[in-house]
Amino acid sequence: MLHGLDERTASIYFPVQEGLAKVDEKLRSLAETKTSPVQPLLKYVTDAGGKRVRPAITLLAAQFHSHDPARPTIMASAVELLHLATLIHDDTVDNSPLRRGRATVSNTWSPHVAVLFGDYVFATSATFVCDTQNIRVIRRFSETIMELASGQLMEYFTAFDATHARDIYNDRIYRKTASLFCTASESGAVLGEAPENEVQALRDYGYNVGMAFQVRDDILDFEGDASNLGKPVGSDLLNGVLTLPTIMLMERYPNDDLVQSLFKDRSNEKKLQKVVEVINDSTVLSDCEQVVQDYSNKACKALDALPDCEPKRSLINLAEYITARHR
Amino acid sequence: MLHGLDERTASIYFPVQEGLAKVDEKLRSLAETKTSPVQPLLKYVTDAGGKRVRPAITLLAAQFHSHDPARPTIMASAVELLHLATLIHDDTVDNSPLRRGRATVSNTWSPHVAVLFGDYVFATSATFVCDTQNIRVIRRFSETIMELASGQLMEYFTAFDATHARDIYNDRIYRKTASLFCTASESGAVLGEAPENEVQALRDYGYNVGMAFQVRDDILDFEGDASNLGKPVGSDLLNGVLTLPTIMLMERYPNDDLVQSLFKDRSNEKKLQKVVEVINDSTVLSDCEQVVQDYSNKACKALDALPDCEPKRSLINLAEYITARHR
Repeated sequence: MLHGLDERTASIYFPVQEGLAKVDEKLRSLAETKTSPVQPLLKYVTDAGGKRVRPAITLLAAQFHSHDPARPTIMASAVELLHLATLIHDDTVDNSPLRRGRATVSNTWSPHVAVLFGDYVFATSATFVCDTQNIRVIRRFSETIMELASGQLMEYFTAFDATHARDIYNDRIYRKTASLFCTASESGAVLGEAPENEVQALRDYGYNVGMAFQVRDDILDFEGDASNLGKPVGSDLLNGVLTLPTIMLMERYPNDDLVQSLFKDRSNEKKLQKVVEVINDSTVLSDCEQVVQDYSNKACKALDALPDCEPKRSLINLAEYITARHR
Repeated sequence: MLHGLDERTASIYFPVQEGLAKVDEKLRSLAETKTSPVQPLLKYVTDAGGKRVRPAITLLAAQFHSHDPARPTIMASAVELLHLATLIHDDTVDNSPLRRGRATVSNTWSPHVAVLFGDYVFATSATFVCDTQNIRVIRRFSETIMELASGQLMEYFTAFDATHARDIYNDRIYRKTASLFCTASESGAVLGEAPENEVQALRDYGYNVGMAFQVRDDILDFEGDASNLGKPVGSDLLNGVLTLPTIMLMERYPNDDLVQSLFKDRSNEKKLQKVVEVINDSTVLSDCEQVVQDYSNKACKALDALPDCEPKRSLINLAEYITARHR
């Protein structure tokens, strides 16, 4: 069993446990072979653990046809490394002190170092993808980095602005989250020698799982115990970032200016508390859960195009697990 | 003639003026086709002009054999875009207010936006390279981004430390500057269908021109008129960054602790002034000029492997022009 995974995750990852061990080895070896100033930084971020959801999807998506296993493995390593790179920059621009219970790179070294080291990790992930020798996945990978960055920029540029909130939200969470899930899944399928209809089905799966993942995260932001993640409840809203629970609340009570009033008076903790209370007292969060469930159902439905087998059952279980995820 | 170039540069670029116009068009069209939040940012950075030295080298290096001109053109656009991306992040981490006489992205928007937008531009440049369909140059490009980032990190980690200063300096300026010149030249040669010995000769040319370029820049930091670039004379040294003039001074007077004394007392403008004076009163700067000349000679010598023709004469003139460059 992979180090640090709970029993349910380990059983979902079972068909690709060898591949995931190789991904961990690849990431660890990165920190061991470098003698440059980046070595301690690489060690710090690759030691941090994590659930490895994205590389697991890449490896599972590759299991449907006979193929060279080295290629999905290197791709899965690239996908995880790209995810780590985005966390380094996101934590820097958000001034986050903690990530997975440890000090962030920005906090441990400095924002200066975190920007440049993040660039280094982005580029390293891209060299990994080159080793797949497949131009289609290499290009898709670069496009994904563009989408991830533009998703974060959208969050910044549309803060405190409720215009077209639902459309902007859907576009933004695709870019900042679902895009990488799509690419994880699609690239696994391509490198696993799947025919084009199955590649599209697996891409579709990745899209819907990614959307479910982010909406679930946005629900947790209103439910969570602040002591748990070091983030206050409603922290997105405090930063002017509209997520599904707040958007649904505004859609339901268009004449109520609770949120607008908070946005006009940005640092008012009491007004934030009020919005959080109203959301928790309404059916908004259970309606959001339904949205997550719908995405998860669509993800599983997309897999109808694929033959029944153990990796397919793992992908279905993974979609359900993400849907039910709690902090 | 390309907009904004002096006569000498325009005459050097003459054999590739059409290609350079296409590079400009490609960069401009990037800002025109996007309707996302990045559009004004793209317009801002692609409007800024610049000498286009790196894309000119890519295009010139491709001129020695018959080839599909679209591929070096897209590569040259990628090289310039990568250069722009590094400037966005460098200005952010250095807190620079100005670049080419205009406010930096970090200063105009915010460091937050500059980090994410820099990521977006890095990734865009990588998608351009994918359009060359050549895995060798795609991989080399990603490695170059790693080198650029690690060069900047080295500058940070070795600041105020004079150990192995000359070796560290040579490694650092290769990474932060010459690496991209190498890649500009090598990729032009590869996409210009040059045989391997010529590819290596052109890579060698790029390396030496890049090293000459950076040493020249480091000389200018001690000569310059502060009003000219908004940077004080000796600004690198003030930040603890040892460049060739200071390193040569320390090598020449190993028992003099002028620099160590400045490093112990970091913000002492008078001590900085003293080091700048001693450097200007000695033969250090003319010895540094000799180093630039040596690199430039090696660059031209590398071209011996190539047939005599107009693009080759342009590359030679470019090496000489960079050597003689003043602010």
